[in-house]
Amino acid sequence: MITRSRNYRRKPAGKFAKTSGRVSDIRDELKDVKKATSAEKLVVPHGSPNAKIRVVPVGGLEEVGRNMMYLEYVDPGSKYHGDIIVIDIGLQFPDENMPGIDYIIPNITSLLPKKDKIKAVIITHAHYDHIGGIPHVMPKLGADIPLYGTDLTLAIIAKRQRDYEHLGGHLNLNEISNDTKLDFGAFQIEFFGVSHNIPGSVGVILHTPVGILIHTGDFKIDTRSGIGGVTEMEKLRELGEKNVLLLMSDSTNAREPGHQFSEVDIQHEMEAIIRDAAGRLIIGTFASLLGRLNEILQIAEKYDKRVAIDGRSMKTNIEIAEHLGYIKVNPAILIDAADTHKYPSKKVVVLVTGAQGEENAVLMRIVTGRHKFLKIQSGDTVVFSSSVIPGNERSVQYLTDKLYRDGADVINYKMLDIHAGGHAKQEDLKLLIETIKPQYLMPIEGNHSFLKLHAKVGRRAGMAEEKIVVADNGQVAEVKKGSVMLTKERVPANYVMVDGLGVGDVQEVVLRDRQMLASDGIFVIIATVDSQTGKVRGSPDIISRGFVYLRESKELLFQARLLVKKIVEHSTHTMHPVNWTYVRDNLRDQVGDFLFEKTHRRPMVLPVVIEV
Amino acid sequence: MITRSRNYRRKPAGKFAKTSGRVSDIRDELKDVKKATSAEKLVVPHGSPNAKIRVVPVGGLEEVGRNMMYLEYVDPGSKYHGDIIVIDIGLQFPDENMPGIDYIIPNITSLLPKKDKIKAVIITHAHYDHIGGIPHVMPKLGADIPLYGTDLTLAIIAKRQRDYEHLGGHLNLNEISNDTKLDFGAFQIEFFGVSHNIPGSVGVILHTPVGILIHTGDFKIDTRSGIGGVTEMEKLRELGEKNVLLLMSDSTNAREPGHQFSEVDIQHEMEAIIRDAAGRLIIGTFASLLGRLNEILQIAEKYDKRVAIDGRSMKTNIEIAEHLGYIKVNPAILIDAADTHKYPSKKVVVLVTGAQGEENAVLMRIVTGRHKFLKIQSGDTVVFSSSVIPGNERSVQYLTDKLYRDGADVINYKMLDIHAGGHAKQEDLKLLIETIKPQYLMPIEGNHSFLKLHAKVGRRAGMAEEKIVVADNGQVAEVKKGSVMLTKERVPANYVMVDGLGVGDVQEVVLRDRQMLASDGIFVIIATVDSQTGKVRGSPDIISRGFVYLRESKELLFQARLLVKKIVEHSTHTMHPVNWTYVRDNLRDQVGDFLFEKTHRRPMVLPVVIEV
Repeated sequence: MITRSRNYRRKPAGKFAKTSGRVSDIRDELKDVKKATSAEKLVVPHGSPNAKIRVVPVGGLEEVGRNMMYLEYVDPGSKYHGDIIVIDIGLQFPDENMPGIDYIIPNITSLLPKKDKIKAVIITHAHYDHIGGIPHVMPKLGADIPLYGTDLTLAIIAKRQRDYEHLGGHLNLNEISNDTKLDFGAFQIEFFGVSHNIPGSVGVILHTPVGILIHTGDFKIDTRSGIGGVTEMEKLRELGEKNVLLLMSDSTNAREPGHQFSEVDIQHEMEAIIRDAAGRLIIGTFASLLGRLNEILQIAEKYDKRVAIDGRSMKTNIEIAEHLGYIKVNPAILIDAADTHKYPSKKVVVLVTGAQGEENAVLMRIVTGRHKFLKIQSGDTVVFSSSVIPGNERSVQYLTDKLYRDGADVINYKMLDIHAGGHAKQEDLKLLIETIKPQYLMPIEGNHSFLKLHAKVGRRAGMAEEKIVVADNGQVAEVKKGSVMLTKERVPANYVMVDGLGVGDVQEVVLRDRQMLASDGIFVIIATVDSQTGKVRGSPDIISRGFVYLRESKELLFQARLLVKKIVEHSTHTMHPVNWTYVRDNLRDQVGDFLFEKTHRRPMVLPVVIEV
Repeated sequence: MITRSRNYRRKPAGKFAKTSGRVSDIRDELKDVKKATSAEKLVVPHGSPNAKIRVVPVGGLEEVGRNMMYLEYVDPGSKYHGDIIVIDIGLQFPDENMPGIDYIIPNITSLLPKKDKIKAVIITHAHYDHIGGIPHVMPKLGADIPLYGTDLTLAIIAKRQRDYEHLGGHLNLNEISNDTKLDFGAFQIEFFGVSHNIPGSVGVILHTPVGILIHTGDFKIDTRSGIGGVTEMEKLRELGEKNVLLLMSDSTNAREPGHQFSEVDIQHEMEAIIRDAAGRLIIGTFASLLGRLNEILQIAEKYDKRVAIDGRSMKTNIEIAEHLGYIKVNPAILIDAADTHKYPSKKVVVLVTGAQGEENAVLMRIVTGRHKFLKIQSGDTVVFSSSVIPGNERSVQYLTDKLYRDGADVINYKMLDIHAGGHAKQEDLKLLIETIKPQYLMPIEGNHSFLKLHAKVGRRAGMAEEKIVVADNGQVAEVKKGSVMLTKERVPANYVMVDGLGVGDVQEVVLRDRQMLASDGIFVIIATVDSQTGKVRGSPDIISRGFVYLRESKELLFQARLLVKKIVEHSTHTMHPVNWTYVRDNLRDQVGDFLFEKTHRRPMVLPVVIEV
């Protein structure tokens, strides 16, 4: 299986462009990518005996998402004093307690005053939890700061940046390979390729005056296949001889015992599904699972099937990966979604986005009849080729029920073992520790419990408890020669929420209001009071949404209006002068209680009193 | 292991009452329970050749929840013509698209005009998806209609009814056993005990003039243990000789291949956990998993541990189950939650509600420091003894992270095999079909895809496709001698949502408003217009919630006010007379667009114009 073949003949230009009309401009975007200058040899400068590196994880240590850390060299006598390297700038998706929020990005408050000391931003791979914060964060840090990543990583960053031009589109992109060496003074940086479910993923090796620090990025170890890329164990074994000071390692799957599955097993299962499909096969997956997409394309070709790819992000990603040689596609097997009916059903494979039941993804549009060309027909088999992200279960269940109703068969990741993830499991993590033999271990990338379970793995690998550092977001670790210490220093690491154009302007109070509005709606009272007589003019206006169905609640509204009139007029007749704040508070409380008594619901009551 | 021992000596009265003060009154409630009169022998009357039974599932066939069906005998010449039997009246929990909704109950619109013909309501077991609609539905159908269930089922119904006294507390409760025979004319009814994760579960056998119909309720088959009750296979084998016409069978786990685990395996794992616990053991589970709770109590006694039970529903359920002989507790091992510190940690087991991360359950209160006596201490082991219900993953993850942070260890259902459910899996379903040998199969209780997968099992068991009936909620099936036919008739089966005191008054429009409010909040504009001059008096009032943080949005509000003034005054100066509806629509659209342009958010805009 070819996963990387730079000399592959280019397919006819604009192959995918036919249906989307948007692709191919990626080549323009990539024009700005420079090859990074690789150093001949890395030479670590001497540091003073008190030199240290502050390791500051601002995100990713209490969640899966918004991964970002920075490393700051502290050595007042040195010309490198204060220099900073940033690793990853990811986003996190909101949970159900954050209605209306688009996503969450890392908090860079502590970094902003020092932004001129940032020498480089290194991106380990192109998943959103590692790149998603770039459009918002980079303009604030300084768009000219060099950003490093492999070709595919940079291409996906560049593509995404287009969607955020209003935030300042410019980035200083520098392409590295697994073997690039970067000289940033106190930080002499190398990389190692890692296996993950997106090609072009790397880990980072930082040679510094205080010792060697390693950041794995996301990784797995697949000893039986290179489909998902190869974790360069040989490089790591060499590091094992060099007395590595600190290993910062991916904890995403630290809950899982054993070894991660090999892509070979997935390939076999996928091959059986594609080979045996008696009708159309519709495969839903993530646009970023490029290794998986490549496998499917190869197998489809082997069994003489035709493949229609639909979904803008999937098309673009495949286009990019092919352009860069990570994917090989025989153009003869590609067909348009509009043309699938021209082929026998059992010859057709449709590759689409939407295995999580996302509202606007292609699979959902097919299932709900909103797709221009494709609809489910009896005999179709639909494969959900990725595990379900918590929170999406009900949408996926809805999709599944609808598919069965329309006569399709469904194969999900639970029914088959096609759900190998991209992350090392416990025995892989142990193997990595035993290979690198670090003095200290800092689990990163995962919820707190994952980090603790990773720490347990470290102890099983023979590390002493005090050599394992479990930090929180924002908690600073100090790395000195021969020691890593968690400090009490905490930098701001609370959520920065993106909502439309607003970044960080949605605070707790706004979210609380949204939750309250969602639960019982709103009840606005408008009373116009004649300042001469103190009487409410006519009948108070009431506007309510999300509380009760107004047309069926006339009696309730009638009584509420009477109550409003009574409360207001009681005040105007007994208070001189009238304390309107008191009147409004009274309206809020008494009308709120009245509505609760009648309905056992607590809408947000907003009283407006207008004196005329 | 004793699971049922009616002669067990009563523990000292009020044992649990000490901390809750609420238990023990269940005995008062049970005073009203009558023993059902069992018929000596069931005699099925003759029906005319055209006699039929309408099987009407009003809920539970497109979801896991709100199970309810009724069977109506149609034979115009017969004195039993029109007689109806209802089976189960459950609730369903709302999903995240239904903010503020408490739960969903079955739609009884089609049953109301015929309510006087209801001869009996039969409840198969005491889980909420089978009993939860009773407090709302029974007063409407007629509280005097006899309701049948086993002792435990009725006790839990009676207890729950107390919480709904405002809806009419009275029920006509009639206790059955597995061997009770009920004579309802055209419906001659027997029961068979089933294994499930709550004791006292039964399936229903209906001997009728058109043939034998079987409703399994929820069931599993556990051939190795009676801990969860026994599915009376012998009775079913006898039915296998009687040419059963229709089997209506539980599809909850029809997605799962193989056989359901035996409670024996769970018991072994639980025994190892309790035996080996070096510190306190805190076990979170459902209050209704009485079989599991019983096991834990027995094992704790075996290893000389002390058990503190906390959580009102759990205490009450154990109290009820013990009162009825389903659970045996040695009073010597029970301690108060307030006294756990008096015992060595490794001697203490705490049994609590809340394994789903529910906000107000005991486990959450312990973890968040809101519990009066208990807090997590280093060395505690917390066991989540039930699988996570979709939608609860994030809450459970929050709990888990917090527990690790506080130094506890966590064992969840995934780490161990302690998650045997209460439902038959594919091979169990096949075994049931092969045992009963029905002419027709109607999968019930589950999402549409589960029913279809159950249908596949039926075909694997040798049934012809046309003998398997997959119905929707509300779709009427007609059962005649030798045939079951799905008709096109549909009775109302849409959601009836309970929200506070309101039943069915929250409609789509209210939910849509709530979702919109949750996403971007509300923006209320109040403009007071001088009818003489057409000018807006002063500055328009703006009230906004859940949209932006107002204190930091002064400029936005300033511009919005200017826009409001401009729109209103343009109209008052150019239109004669002023069309206020037009002005309000204009305000809504233009201010909405303005806010979207500035923020990319779309709050609900509510304009109020007051002419003075």
